[in-house]
Amino acid sequence: MSENSGPFAPPGSAAEVEEGRTFSPKFDANGLVTCVATDAGSGDVLMVAHMNAAALARTIETGEAWYYSRSRKALWRKGETSGHVQRVVEMRIDCDQDAVWIKVEQAGGAACHTGRRSCFYRAVPLGTPAGTVTLEFRDADKLFDPEKVYRDKS
Amino acid sequence: MSENSGPFAPPGSAAEVEEGRTFSPKFDANGLVTCVATDAGSGDVLMVAHMNAAALARTIETGEAWYYSRSRKALWRKGETSGHVQRVVEMRIDCDQDAVWIKVEQAGGAACHTGRRSCFYRAVPLGTPAGTVTLEFRDADKLFDPEKVYRDKS
Repeated sequence: MSENSGPFAPPGSAAEVEEGRTFSPKFDANGLVTCVATDAGSGDVLMVAHMNAAALARTIETGEAWYYSRSRKALWRKGETSGHVQRVVEMRIDCDQDAVWIKVEQAGGAACHTGRRSCFYRAVPLGTPAGTVTLEFRDADKLFDPEKVYRDKS
Repeated sequence: MSENSGPFAPPGSAAEVEEGRTFSPKFDANGLVTCVATDAGSGDVLMVAHMNAAALARTIETGEAWYYSRSRKALWRKGETSGHVQRVVEMRIDCDQDAVWIKVEQAGGAACHTGRRSCFYRAVPLGTPAGTVTLEFRDADKLFDPEKVYRDKS
């Protein structure tokens, strides 16, 4: 894993990881940490994605969100195609240092590739047998037309 | 994977997964989806954890958060030891249905096993070379003593 941990320190003891000031992100077997991006204004969750060491380092150094695309197997500057970049207002790391939370200002107001403000535009009703769930659309207005934004840009 | 998808429909086409009302969570190779829990009041991210099909089904059916512990390899009712259960106010699923967002009312006010309100009690300063980061504690007061809460309860 050392070749995948980039410029970061390898994790020490559990006490150091949880109670220390050393930043030692715990990358998984695929070299990734989970990243949650929330809207710095509303607090709503915009998206959940992944960062490898390079994406995490670039995000820290530039203050703009970089991710790792598991489907494209490539470093991915959020908004590189759509222009919908994310300016990071604050970054936090969790207790065991395998998840990152970033509060962002979302350019264009839409984080989701479907054109919506957030990727979480459908609710799962509760208190019902899980096999009978029908999703309910919420805040699902499209702020841009993905066919126009991504056309001829792949 | 079918034996791991529980009562849920298998994913259909990308269009169905993204634009449909069918709930077909996309479990990873380990049978898990990522779950982000935020505080229903403040909107702050409390924790990031994982759910297998059984945990997701129980959460939907009971309205209380259940997770899957990767370290203990076991279904885990949040708060089963500490009493710090999470009542789920709303559940959302993301565009490609591999991440769940739950807004919760956190019993005891503390979601983190270290005794803190949130697992994200340290900030990563931005605009600095990534290898030189020193974490900064934020909102890191302990609301309970983990040694007392978890003692003799393993």
